[in-house]
Amino acid sequence: MAALSSPRRSALSDQVISELRNQITSGEWPVGSRIPTEPELVEQLGVARNTVREAVRALAHNGLLDIRQGSGTYVIATSELAGVMHRRFAGADPRHIAELRSTLESSAARMAAERRTERDLRQLETLLARREAAWTARDAERFVSADVALHLAVVSASHNDVLTALYADLGDLVRDTLRDDVESGIRPENHMDHARLVAAIRAGDAEAAGTEAASHALDCLAERA
Amino acid sequence: MAALSSPRRSALSDQVISELRNQITSGEWPVGSRIPTEPELVEQLGVARNTVREAVRALAHNGLLDIRQGSGTYVIATSELAGVMHRRFAGADPRHIAELRSTLESSAARMAAERRTERDLRQLETLLARREAAWTARDAERFVSADVALHLAVVSASHNDVLTALYADLGDLVRDTLRDDVESGIRPENHMDHARLVAAIRAGDAEAAGTEAASHALDCLAERA
Repeated sequence: MAALSSPRRSALSDQVISELRNQITSGEWPVGSRIPTEPELVEQLGVARNTVREAVRALAHNGLLDIRQGSGTYVIATSELAGVMHRRFAGADPRHIAELRSTLESSAARMAAERRTERDLRQLETLLARREAAWTARDAERFVSADVALHLAVVSASHNDVLTALYADLGDLVRDTLRDDVESGIRPENHMDHARLVAAIRAGDAEAAGTEAASHALDCLAERA
Repeated sequence: MAALSSPRRSALSDQVISELRNQITSGEWPVGSRIPTEPELVEQLGVARNTVREAVRALAHNGLLDIRQGSGTYVIATSELAGVMHRRFAGADPRHIAELRSTLESSAARMAAERRTERDLRQLETLLARREAAWTARDAERFVSADVALHLAVVSASHNDVLTALYADLGDLVRDTLRDDVESGIRPENHMDHARLVAAIRAGDAEAAGTEAASHALDCLAERA
């Protein structure tokens, strides 16, 4: 039992936690996937079974993994903050989530209009085109992915790292909301022309960019009500 | 070693985690305080030393506790989300934190102007008076507390639970920023009349409330630059 308190054991455990976390944040183990079994991880990482178990439990406590008895251990979030927010807000009123999304997106769009680089604008145009193509092809899964990526790119163009990290970590919740919206098939009211938002950011019109971004999130809310 | 994997052990450990967490969230063990030693916790909780150690390590992983070798274990945050955000954003650009604060406060103030109850208004008036009294007494610590409480009450009057929880969890960072502002003594530019913000919320003027709230956070930023 003395081994449990030795500094070496603790450092090794932290290293294994860090390795498992990298598998998750890199996308090697995507959200929803089952991670290798305990014996497989012992084999792959070359550490004791207790060290693996301690690391897996720590990541479960942090909200990245979900240990399901008899089924295996699953990835449920890509970062600690995303995991904690997902658990904390999973049962929240969807209108409150939509208002927070509108708040962050609108503020970020204003900043993006004032700070966007040429590289940001090229990225926005690419994602806008991808979103339109998925819409034309009526491909719901690709449409949701492209829509999420476009909104994240708008927020990222704010060049505010804290806002961008927070919004990205809210991503799981936003994605759930969007998927709910389109899961019964893409309807015309899900389309919402995002070209005006990108045009306002390109033009450096903070007021118009903020208003466009806010209206998207709140239109989603109105449909849902 | 088999005991480590038994379900009973795991449930007990989760129960101890929950008990320690309650000590923290209730304020029984405030942020900055040293928690009882391992032998003291074994005595108080009536569980094995390994169970205590596992619970303390889990809460350290979650960012609520900091284990300092040779010194003891300290409370560093009041919730998982606060802990994770504190760690994630501790090294962030203060301007980015101030912009996020401005974004959340401004949006919440708009909602508060539309949704505040009579009870909210009484609470805001009380906190405004407390802030003014601390200002008059030139009591920096009380001024920071009253200022933080007033801003939290404005956000809470938005009646958006997600926004309120997120803002409260950002509290440690906001409090750090405010304390930095006043630690060299309260200066006239720290005062900033908040009566206009409360009056706009009372009047139901969302536009004025949003503008007032945004200007406070950004004025702090300008002084700091």
